[in-house]
Amino acid sequence: MAKNQKLKIIPLGGLNEIGKNMTAFEFGGDIIVLDCGLAFPDDDMPGIDMVIPDISYLIKNQSKVKAIVLTHGHEDHIGAIPYFLKELNIPIFGSRLTMGLVELKLKEHNLLSKTKLHRVRAGDIVKIGSGFRVEFIRTNHSIPDAMALAIHTPIGTVVHTGDFKVDCTPIEGQMIDLAKFGDLGKQGVLALMSESTNVERPGYTMSESTVGNSFDDLFRNHGDQRIIVATFASNVHRVQQIINSAYRFGRKVAFSGRSMESVAEVAMLLGYMTVPENVIISIDEIKKYRPNQLVIITTGSQGEAMSALTRMAFSDHKKVEINRGDLVIISATPIPGNEKPISNVINELFKKGAEVVYRSLENIHVSGHACQEELKIILSLTKPKYFIPVHGEFRHLRQHALLAEKMGIPSKNIIVGDVGKVIELGPNSCKLNGTVPSGIVLVDGLGVGDVGNIVLRDRKHLAEDGIIVVVVTMSKKDGSILSGPDVISRGFVYVRESEDLMDEAKAIARESLERAVSKNHNDWATLKNGLKSSLSDFLYTKTKRKPMVLPVIMEV
Amino acid sequence: MAKNQKLKIIPLGGLNEIGKNMTAFEFGGDIIVLDCGLAFPDDDMPGIDMVIPDISYLIKNQSKVKAIVLTHGHEDHIGAIPYFLKELNIPIFGSRLTMGLVELKLKEHNLLSKTKLHRVRAGDIVKIGSGFRVEFIRTNHSIPDAMALAIHTPIGTVVHTGDFKVDCTPIEGQMIDLAKFGDLGKQGVLALMSESTNVERPGYTMSESTVGNSFDDLFRNHGDQRIIVATFASNVHRVQQIINSAYRFGRKVAFSGRSMESVAEVAMLLGYMTVPENVIISIDEIKKYRPNQLVIITTGSQGEAMSALTRMAFSDHKKVEINRGDLVIISATPIPGNEKPISNVINELFKKGAEVVYRSLENIHVSGHACQEELKIILSLTKPKYFIPVHGEFRHLRQHALLAEKMGIPSKNIIVGDVGKVIELGPNSCKLNGTVPSGIVLVDGLGVGDVGNIVLRDRKHLAEDGIIVVVVTMSKKDGSILSGPDVISRGFVYVRESEDLMDEAKAIARESLERAVSKNHNDWATLKNGLKSSLSDFLYTKTKRKPMVLPVIMEV
Repeated sequence: MAKNQKLKIIPLGGLNEIGKNMTAFEFGGDIIVLDCGLAFPDDDMPGIDMVIPDISYLIKNQSKVKAIVLTHGHEDHIGAIPYFLKELNIPIFGSRLTMGLVELKLKEHNLLSKTKLHRVRAGDIVKIGSGFRVEFIRTNHSIPDAMALAIHTPIGTVVHTGDFKVDCTPIEGQMIDLAKFGDLGKQGVLALMSESTNVERPGYTMSESTVGNSFDDLFRNHGDQRIIVATFASNVHRVQQIINSAYRFGRKVAFSGRSMESVAEVAMLLGYMTVPENVIISIDEIKKYRPNQLVIITTGSQGEAMSALTRMAFSDHKKVEINRGDLVIISATPIPGNEKPISNVINELFKKGAEVVYRSLENIHVSGHACQEELKIILSLTKPKYFIPVHGEFRHLRQHALLAEKMGIPSKNIIVGDVGKVIELGPNSCKLNGTVPSGIVLVDGLGVGDVGNIVLRDRKHLAEDGIIVVVVTMSKKDGSILSGPDVISRGFVYVRESEDLMDEAKAIARESLERAVSKNHNDWATLKNGLKSSLSDFLYTKTKRKPMVLPVIMEV
Repeated sequence: MAKNQKLKIIPLGGLNEIGKNMTAFEFGGDIIVLDCGLAFPDDDMPGIDMVIPDISYLIKNQSKVKAIVLTHGHEDHIGAIPYFLKELNIPIFGSRLTMGLVELKLKEHNLLSKTKLHRVRAGDIVKIGSGFRVEFIRTNHSIPDAMALAIHTPIGTVVHTGDFKVDCTPIEGQMIDLAKFGDLGKQGVLALMSESTNVERPGYTMSESTVGNSFDDLFRNHGDQRIIVATFASNVHRVQQIINSAYRFGRKVAFSGRSMESVAEVAMLLGYMTVPENVIISIDEIKKYRPNQLVIITTGSQGEAMSALTRMAFSDHKKVEINRGDLVIISATPIPGNEKPISNVINELFKKGAEVVYRSLENIHVSGHACQEELKIILSLTKPKYFIPVHGEFRHLRQHALLAEKMGIPSKNIIVGDVGKVIELGPNSCKLNGTVPSGIVLVDGLGVGDVGNIVLRDRKHLAEDGIIVVVVTMSKKDGSILSGPDVISRGFVYVRESEDLMDEAKAIARESLERAVSKNHNDWATLKNGLKSSLSDFLYTKTKRKPMVLPVIMEV
């Protein structure tokens, strides 16, 4: 393999945005894909269920694409796998828990039997294609079995941290393998790709184990109340700690929420969660116990509309009703954008007489991401020649670049990249060079990619001001109006109170048609444009609103 | 006036929500209205410009309604005045700056000449109707000239804090008149209504003057860069401090954003802002100066779509272009719900090469609301018999109630109210008693109240999945299909890539019609329902989406 070959690093997601992490590494005739995540839709994507990366570059080069390698099992790192596999069926490598969660997903999509899944352990090195050796390195994160990857190539080694924190007292398993990062640094790291989520926060992220003490205190001080705890289903160690407190204080534990049940099952099966006998009960059994004998662990810590906690708060849960005196603990912080829905849930719980413990009131959550001091540790251990901040919005990447500069990496050796921009890495060079097709694909119901910008623009327009449909039947022979025009509105005004306005609109439409026909401008396009502009002008003058106007002409 | 008469306190806004503050006080034949604010629409109110209180109770009792009394000039306390005056033209009482801002608003609505405005000073007592004496008490807040009110009635005194903080080193004017709160406490306060915004925060809110030092530091350390500061236009003292720093470091100041310009003008005119000569320049003059000679003070600290800062960030501002090396200071914290848009603006500014200083990085903002210790001070000074937490979501009211309990107020003497629920207050009683019509009125363009729940529900439906219009022309004589059915969609799928789907939909529609006609079910309602359900079912099976289906039948 020639030394003057370049390694191409192609971000297909996860930069300048949160979610849908995916990075392609291309060397010679091989491509490996690091992570394959989805993102949840923004407010400006009404109706969209999820967002996945555009992989048309990989499809075009499918003979090269050898494997997916995974850092951990969060949705923004594995959620797009079913959609990916429908296009490119290639083997997947990941840790045991990560693969357990991938299996869940593949079962749902009937893809399990068709896919080659390789379970790896920390320390394993996997040879992929002729150019890559991928080494899995233990890290800490808010899900067990998270890995950083050292991607060894003939021209040098790239270290990708995945999502991580440095937790010296993890709940189960071991702390991040800092020694390995140090070894790699000694051997020489060509480039470090490190996550940037918490780069704005000074200091250290607290250990997950500190949360356990808070749970114990809360359980001790609320011994006579039912306790409901909302957290992320994938935060297995958090769930473990809640179960530990429940056991210590003699309570039974029931799970609520589909993902909570299925992730707990996988985690217990694979030995990532240890539960004493007779502690777990089914949610159907809670009626058999007194409130002070129960803990319910539920989804919904982000105020998600369909989640179990939200249903409980709004009296829409089939099996759990919030009662006066319940203690609800929300063991999470809002992901940016979710502040309002969470706040609504908290208010509803209070209104039902529950006591609610949430962020800033108690020490009931810690982040899964490294703060500045931890990021510095990784930089100092790996001593990379080049630095590429990843996983964050642009401002995070920028701040991480500044941090790396302070740690002594020359600014010319730091690349703040973007989705679709190829980073070309040689033994002594690192630069942006060219772009590949990239972006987002919207999933809406069964449709993957059939909702694009035009449809979204229409949806937003419809949401803002509604629609006016104007329908007329005209004579093929002489262009005379046979029926209508009828004017129907949806999402515009409350029609019963605006009958005059709608009558006037009808008259305006008729005038516009008659004027056009009298001038012999009776091709459909002209008639429709006339209807559209005369109605739009009229309605804007009357209401200062701009509903979508949809003219329909029928010919008989 | 009989001692057994009751004082009714009727919250018409500002409880269990943020914004549109309004409370009616009714005693005997008199009603006074405390504040008259608007709220900005939630995410689930697409197209709505603003939200104002439902005042139908006041309109029904209009002969009783004597005056509006204002605590301060923020939009959520004065923004609904023009709409209120169009229904009920009554005099308004408020401090000088507050009235200056009300005047701005009335000018826009051509209401200035028709309205009686009374300017008051701290310490003034105004007699309104035969039952009320309203005393204005100086407070501190994030706008100058804010007042608490002591509402004296024959059965006792109610103190309403308005929005406040305790600032011992205010920028201009004096600190909150704690002695007066103490005097009132000594004379006996029947009920205290105190704001709850920051009740979740322990300790004290920092003084506004601490921000000045941060500005000085930033100006000193960035002497060669242009400086752009975004803050709230109404935060006159913040703007004053920015001007002070600019003057100290020899820079000119230009304002950008309509509200920034107009509020600054009023504040300077009325003497609430003191500006050395030759410091302010017009935004058109900035080209005449070097970057290091300039400060631009702009709106947009909340990432508002049409604001000056957002336009600058997205290269859409006519007069200011962001250049590499600009220092942008966002001197505000996000109001809940605004995190995402602000983040987008920050990312864009970074991408343009600006350096951006925002929350958590520097001490460049303080809150205008009292934290727990300040709330306790007011409770301890006024020693109220009854306590009514106001201004906050339900969880804030609840926490404030708990705080008051800890301060020794018996829980039976604390009322957590709600909009429309009448609080009936006697010398020895305080209870919820009855409700009045209340709620929100939506303003969309020129329409006030013509968008209600049905229209909003339709807008949300349209936004989620779009609309399918199916049009057919049928014969009056025999019910045969003369033209169509045509199927047109907007916001549903990208039609060019879904032609087959739309063709199938047409066939389904035709089938449905023919089936109905053949069975002689040819009244319009039956035909339309048939079209709707057969198309909905078909589209859901094919796409797992539920677009709005709008059938239109024309008869010829």
